[in-house]
Amino acid sequence: MPDVTVLTESDLRSVVSIDLEAIDVVERAFAALATSEVVMPPILSMEIPAANGEVDVKTAYIPGFGGFAIKVSPGFFDNPKLGLPSLNGLMILFSAKTGLVEALLLDNGYLTDVRTAAAGAVAARHLASETRTAGVMGTGVQARLQIEAAFKVRPFERVLVWGRDSAKAEACAADLAERLGIETLAQPDPARLLAECQLVVTTTPARSPILRADWLHPGLHITAMGSDQGGKNEIEPEVFSRIDAYVPDRLSQCEALGELRAALEAGTVTAAASFDELGAVVATPTLGRRSPEDITLCDLTGTGAQDTAIATFALERAKRQAVGSVIRT
Amino acid sequence: MPDVTVLTESDLRSVVSIDLEAIDVVERAFAALATSEVVMPPILSMEIPAANGEVDVKTAYIPGFGGFAIKVSPGFFDNPKLGLPSLNGLMILFSAKTGLVEALLLDNGYLTDVRTAAAGAVAARHLASETRTAGVMGTGVQARLQIEAAFKVRPFERVLVWGRDSAKAEACAADLAERLGIETLAQPDPARLLAECQLVVTTTPARSPILRADWLHPGLHITAMGSDQGGKNEIEPEVFSRIDAYVPDRLSQCEALGELRAALEAGTVTAAASFDELGAVVATPTLGRRSPEDITLCDLTGTGAQDTAIATFALERAKRQAVGSVIRT
Repeated sequence: MPDVTVLTESDLRSVVSIDLEAIDVVERAFAALATSEVVMPPILSMEIPAANGEVDVKTAYIPGFGGFAIKVSPGFFDNPKLGLPSLNGLMILFSAKTGLVEALLLDNGYLTDVRTAAAGAVAARHLASETRTAGVMGTGVQARLQIEAAFKVRPFERVLVWGRDSAKAEACAADLAERLGIETLAQPDPARLLAECQLVVTTTPARSPILRADWLHPGLHITAMGSDQGGKNEIEPEVFSRIDAYVPDRLSQCEALGELRAALEAGTVTAAASFDELGAVVATPTLGRRSPEDITLCDLTGTGAQDTAIATFALERAKRQAVGSVIRT
Repeated sequence: MPDVTVLTESDLRSVVSIDLEAIDVVERAFAALATSEVVMPPILSMEIPAANGEVDVKTAYIPGFGGFAIKVSPGFFDNPKLGLPSLNGLMILFSAKTGLVEALLLDNGYLTDVRTAAAGAVAARHLASETRTAGVMGTGVQARLQIEAAFKVRPFERVLVWGRDSAKAEACAADLAERLGIETLAQPDPARLLAECQLVVTTTPARSPILRADWLHPGLHITAMGSDQGGKNEIEPEVFSRIDAYVPDRLSQCEALGELRAALEAGTVTAAASFDELGAVVATPTLGRRSPEDITLCDLTGTGAQDTAIATFALERAKRQAVGSVIRT
């Protein structure tokens, strides 16, 4: 049997970061979702109440990619008490021709962070209007990575950061200032943050809205990436009545797990409404934003197609740079 | 982060085989299915028509087991043309307390073979009557392993083997004679095989029945393990009208993937019928066979609970014997 490549988190951090190549490979996966025979089954999800844990499994086959990834994402929310991170997991890359295991990517969620931020950059590239100031709501890993990724495709001049905890917002702003080398400030008033930004990314696990319809203005683009479960909701449902384009990463997922769920429940969107997915917007430039004054919202719940794309990309990079170890089977 | 143990197929073959300990651990998983808070989500299944391939993902959490396995089983049916086996795959064992990866079991399907045969032994132990002659229909890996496993719990005196291909049946019989050291013969007439056996295991991928209701006789136990997909069927639906107990490994799976599916379609079972699962029969000895004259049928489609059990067992054995390698993460 063929050898299996093993890449640890530190291997993967040394070869994959948020750069244009990573963004482009994720964009290619979205385009494939819209235009070719992608197979993406529903997420397998298992709860382990005894340990306050859950585990999700995602996968997708994308024609044109030589492999498909199966990603296992455990979330065990008592781990911080043990000094361990809540989120972990790995990806397994299989040959799409033979089903044999090609690589084990022990990324502890790092590749998910990268492909999620890359999707935000794809949304910023295809949906945002001209951006001088970008804003982020939330102060965690994705707050940093989403802004870093968006900056690669929309080189804005200034960043504003809002968080419930002002010390964390200051720390996030300081980090971003150092990484991007541009003016970055914490902004404690979310209404003012919205007023000053052309592009806003929401990255929180909020269960009730943190972004209000009253704060919208012409030309604004919002990417909401925090909601990935039925109970989460960052965007006030009324927003859906006032925007010009709503773009889900995967409509079937967003109905159940994304911002669309709360809007459907509130009745600001009807079940009969149809929306172009992000892949269609990538593949067909006339879809999505139609004028600089449009208000647009992209809803990211995370797709197996992104996992297959980033895993394939990571293995190629690692092989080119001779990183990783090999198991003879 | 903790180290991850890697076990290759040859590591696993050196530490795990069909023995009473393996059978008992699988029996314990079935008992847990019936009596405690097992979480076993539906199978994730993805077809890749472009490569004549498919991939299934199974998992289960069983209280009392320290880990849970996620098993990925690809089947790529053009592989033999490339000199590769059709079935492959691996199991990943996670801590049920933290969700961290504990071990990668690169078994290429070997552990599935073992846990499937072990389930057959559990069925033979709890459902068969006194067995002098055991029979097997089919001549592949599972034909051999099912008989080997059943022999551990029901030490019969003789084995009969039926297969569509008489040369393969002879070869299978010769193998089993050597492994078990008892009289083992190919029997080209399946009706005669049934007449002479008290325990029969069907192990074929048949899509139309190979075991007829006319061949049933008092005291017979049948374990049907070949059907694991909607299109497969080994047992004539009329059999369901004539047996005293039907025991599925998991009722919800057998309705869709097992022998029960064809019986429901044929109308020999009504959707309202209720059946005790194998786990309930293990946990409650008064269920299942109630007299030596009863005719019983056990339907095995394969459960994530078995995977969690065998993966946990394999890692324990490997650690005790200092087999495998370690990845520092």
